[in-house]
Amino acid sequence: MSNCVFCKIIDGEIPSYTIYEDEYVKAFLDISQATPGHTLVVPKKHVANIYEYDEDLAEKVFARIPKIARAIKKSAPDIVGMNIVNNNGELAYQSVFHSHFHLIPRYSKDDGFSMHFQDNSEKYNEDALEQIKENIAKSMEE
Amino acid sequence: MSNCVFCKIIDGEIPSYTIYEDEYVKAFLDISQATPGHTLVVPKKHVANIYEYDEDLAEKVFARIPKIARAIKKSAPDIVGMNIVNNNGELAYQSVFHSHFHLIPRYSKDDGFSMHFQDNSEKYNEDALEQIKENIAKSMEE
Repeated sequence: MSNCVFCKIIDGEIPSYTIYEDEYVKAFLDISQATPGHTLVVPKKHVANIYEYDEDLAEKVFARIPKIARAIKKSAPDIVGMNIVNNNGELAYQSVFHSHFHLIPRYSKDDGFSMHFQDNSEKYNEDALEQIKENIAKSMEE
Repeated sequence: MSNCVFCKIIDGEIPSYTIYEDEYVKAFLDISQATPGHTLVVPKKHVANIYEYDEDLAEKVFARIPKIARAIKKSAPDIVGMNIVNNNGELAYQSVFHSHFHLIPRYSKDDGFSMHFQDNSEKYNEDALEQIKENIAKSMEE
């Protein structure tokens, strides 16, 4: 896409700190570096979000991620964890609408990245969970 | 693994709200439901974290994720975004040491899930970014 910043990085029109590249994906440093080594893995094919992947593209992109994650981990002895994050939609923190996976190495609790999961395990009874499950399972079949 | 809660869910020894299952993966509701529809996609093979996946397993697991994401989105009209999250290491919020992907549908900013990415784009100069890139790229080759 002509106005997509990631398509321009993939084409080499905008420079990047590239750590890996092949026919299907390009992996480069996120310029914001939430933590040191924060890397983006991006499909070369322009897809806006997770909903637009077919099985083949999902396989191709994700097949590369464990190897890249191992390399990031190995690159610095003080890395003790890694968050892999894919955001879809502006409200979900997506800012570039060319799908990408953040690999965020973790060093300490206050290293520049955090997440909060609310624990609602007391909020839903069995009927409510069954209903949510049914709604999603039904959508799977359509 | 005999003491792994997700292996027990996969074996049916512990019940779950299952929305999808095949030879390679099982997808079921996270009992904590950070937001309604919060789903875990879990490889049936016990791997502790992203570093333990080979390419084939990564392909198999991830091939299923776009379809499950589409079904979750379709299941509720008020879903406006989705965060897909894979946590590795206790510090990175991993609490069950059988690798899993959270699919967290998003409804509003204060719906039960949030992330914070620190913007360090002013912190690193070109030399620092080049050094980080070199360290990771070197690890890729080893």
